[in-house]
Amino acid sequence: MRNLTLLTDFYELTMMYGYFLQGKTEEVATFDLFFRPYEESNFCIAAGLEQAIEYVNNLHFSAEDIGYLRSTKAFNEDFLKFLADFRFTGSIKAIPEGTVVFPYEPLMVITAPICQAQLMEAALLNIINFQTLIATKARRIAYAAAPGGVLEFGLRRAQAPDASVYGARAAVIGGCTSTSNVLCAQMFGMPPKGTHAHSWVMSFPTEYDAFMAYAQTYPDGCLLLVDTYDTLGSGVPNAIKVFNYLKANGHKPLGIRLDSGDLAYLSKQARNMLDDAGHADCQIFASSDIDEYVLMSLKQQGARIDTFGVGTKMITSHNTPSLGGVYKLANLRVNGQDNPKMKISDNPVKMTNPGVKTVYRLFCKNTNKAIADVICLADETIDETRPLTITHPTDRWKTKDVTNFYARNLYAEVFTDGKLVYKTQDVYALQRNCMESLDGFWDEYKRLTQPHAYKVDLSDKLYALKQKLIIEEKNGGN
Amino acid sequence: MRNLTLLTDFYELTMMYGYFLQGKTEEVATFDLFFRPYEESNFCIAAGLEQAIEYVNNLHFSAEDIGYLRSTKAFNEDFLKFLADFRFTGSIKAIPEGTVVFPYEPLMVITAPICQAQLMEAALLNIINFQTLIATKARRIAYAAAPGGVLEFGLRRAQAPDASVYGARAAVIGGCTSTSNVLCAQMFGMPPKGTHAHSWVMSFPTEYDAFMAYAQTYPDGCLLLVDTYDTLGSGVPNAIKVFNYLKANGHKPLGIRLDSGDLAYLSKQARNMLDDAGHADCQIFASSDIDEYVLMSLKQQGARIDTFGVGTKMITSHNTPSLGGVYKLANLRVNGQDNPKMKISDNPVKMTNPGVKTVYRLFCKNTNKAIADVICLADETIDETRPLTITHPTDRWKTKDVTNFYARNLYAEVFTDGKLVYKTQDVYALQRNCMESLDGFWDEYKRLTQPHAYKVDLSDKLYALKQKLIIEEKNGGN
Repeated sequence: MRNLTLLTDFYELTMMYGYFLQGKTEEVATFDLFFRPYEESNFCIAAGLEQAIEYVNNLHFSAEDIGYLRSTKAFNEDFLKFLADFRFTGSIKAIPEGTVVFPYEPLMVITAPICQAQLMEAALLNIINFQTLIATKARRIAYAAAPGGVLEFGLRRAQAPDASVYGARAAVIGGCTSTSNVLCAQMFGMPPKGTHAHSWVMSFPTEYDAFMAYAQTYPDGCLLLVDTYDTLGSGVPNAIKVFNYLKANGHKPLGIRLDSGDLAYLSKQARNMLDDAGHADCQIFASSDIDEYVLMSLKQQGARIDTFGVGTKMITSHNTPSLGGVYKLANLRVNGQDNPKMKISDNPVKMTNPGVKTVYRLFCKNTNKAIADVICLADETIDETRPLTITHPTDRWKTKDVTNFYARNLYAEVFTDGKLVYKTQDVYALQRNCMESLDGFWDEYKRLTQPHAYKVDLSDKLYALKQKLIIEEKNGGN
Repeated sequence: MRNLTLLTDFYELTMMYGYFLQGKTEEVATFDLFFRPYEESNFCIAAGLEQAIEYVNNLHFSAEDIGYLRSTKAFNEDFLKFLADFRFTGSIKAIPEGTVVFPYEPLMVITAPICQAQLMEAALLNIINFQTLIATKARRIAYAAAPGGVLEFGLRRAQAPDASVYGARAAVIGGCTSTSNVLCAQMFGMPPKGTHAHSWVMSFPTEYDAFMAYAQTYPDGCLLLVDTYDTLGSGVPNAIKVFNYLKANGHKPLGIRLDSGDLAYLSKQARNMLDDAGHADCQIFASSDIDEYVLMSLKQQGARIDTFGVGTKMITSHNTPSLGGVYKLANLRVNGQDNPKMKISDNPVKMTNPGVKTVYRLFCKNTNKAIADVICLADETIDETRPLTITHPTDRWKTKDVTNFYARNLYAEVFTDGKLVYKTQDVYALQRNCMESLDGFWDEYKRLTQPHAYKVDLSDKLYALKQKLIIEEKNGGN
């Protein structure tokens, strides 16, 4: 297990030192990890919790870490001793991986002595931001590709090794079938996928020799890359000759792969050529700068592609390569007394929601489809027997009365008083969670362009607390 | 040292298996790692070689790896035995980190038995693509910020842990002063940077209390974040009070940090307020979605910012989060006979340059500024005593005669027959390499918009070889 304890911004440590010197180490902070509205998608798919748990479970300052921090000359020996004894003793609840989540809903709620909670900010954001970003992008791509499958192929363009491994994991949670990344496949129990590259073809005297050699290597499930020289002029004809040979010898070839050129045109032509040669059972795989927008266009053009290999555009979330997840102080318990906290800003989008909170999702009893989410204070419950008035978070005159519903709390307990109480699931179970969570939403919310706006309300009690703190701040000043 | 041997696409292994079964393991391949024209910058800053070297040096299939590959049922036992004995015995030359590089110039040239060279494709691309991308972005940002300094702050938005660490390393090579990332600072010997967050301010009853507590923690070099509530109404006035206190007690405060709002307006107002209060020696730091375009605008507006903290936009190379680096077969030596290889494509941009190559950069003897690069075959030399005709790579009628020049080969030997023969340098030495390499170019090539096109020629011999292979391919067919 890698020690990522120093995977933190230096200011977390200087603040911890300040809290330590100010005698604040017993104060218990609650931080919310949430994201603000995200330009590319109206909702996200939560991901990364398993790696967040590993990070928290393994938090400790090794002797080498302490020695390094001493060398910065920024801390005294009492504090270094405090760090040497550091372990996580707090509580964490989180929305499970694969769940549909909306802006401002805390994906994680961390309650711990302030030094502990502060230390984890940067690493938790790093882990959750990236995997949630990629699971969200993969959901969009898998949605556009359906019923075609999507394979994750992004290793070579991922932003360093971890991104390739954890990005591929998140992509499978979001709906991809598997990955080409062998290390990721090994770590997370997925079948690694892939056949051969152009260099294979170029290393033989002719394309036909290369195809035949590959067919001899893998006579069953043989998949041939046909675009090294001339896709329709040589690639597909050579593949057909080899498939004829394989079938004559009792083998079942898998199909061909296109990796360049006009995929709509080439796939239709190749489909005809394969069909005419008696290989209607051979599939067409395609890759080459694919994302959800290319997929929509391919579908519109009637492209004949069965499975898509998606690399760069998914593993980097190319159009929007960052999720704006933040980690904000929501409550500070001092001497047993709760003090709800919020960031007041001239920019309303940067205002936070105060207090220790929870989130309920309301479903229609008849359709089992989600109606709205309600962010409440943690001690609130939802009375399912009475109509509930949903109010727009900022435009308070917009309301809707909800009846005939049931409410589901979105959180799982992950750590209680420092003890891990949550059991993680394998990636395909998380993928099923994701599909189930998505099934709870009407297609109008899930379409890729101009989706219908889903309602995320603040409870009356939370709204009132927020207004009170804003007014106190205005009157009190700083 | 992490074992990244399985950080590879599955097709590298299936091809290796095919080469093994076909008796091709003694064939010696030369692969070029290069990038194609990159939309955001006319040149790149090479980076990532140190991590590429570590990867190659540590390549081995552990017993666990072999067991895992056996479980995929894709390979026979002879091949698994071959993998168990695997180690790198080839040669690598590379352009040192920090060097200005152009499209099509091989950043690395790998010559090794084909199975070895094939295995490394995906991981080498992953490592070099990302660090080169970020060093290039950092160069642009540092160029726009100068004379202001740039600190790397991107940990929380980086694409997983490795990206934060190696991205920050690359950012410093490209011109950043240092990073907030403690793990990166520890690994690469940089001073970690940072002060406090909004949560520090919010954890105290008032902003003034928070500032005073922070000043007591770090009375020297105190830097205060002034935008938690109201930058000019409370933040800067409270900071001034604390700076007055610090100076009265013999300390030297560092300054203030702005993290939101209109940075041009706020920095000018804050500068006036600090100056009027006798703190002309206090600096202004700013962060908040900064990139080279924001920096150009801030400069135009006369913003008064001394140092910039840059996060998301740099660590993800936000506008273009991938570099299109590829790894292409250039030569195959079979029974001691060289066979130059190239990818022929209907798309000219996807054509590759055949043969084992090298690159010279020509400098003017009077100005020491670069005139052009020449990609040649490896056995060619440049005669500095005679005029050299530079020809446009595709528009062959465009030529230029160069005189009064000297030529520098861009490569260093890294591995020779499996032995590491290259000594890596620390990041600040690489940063100096980068500054020196940049100093070799006129500003016209380095400006951020519409830069002058730099000439990268193919030698006549290489050009002739390429044409010959294209014609052979047309006539021979596949």
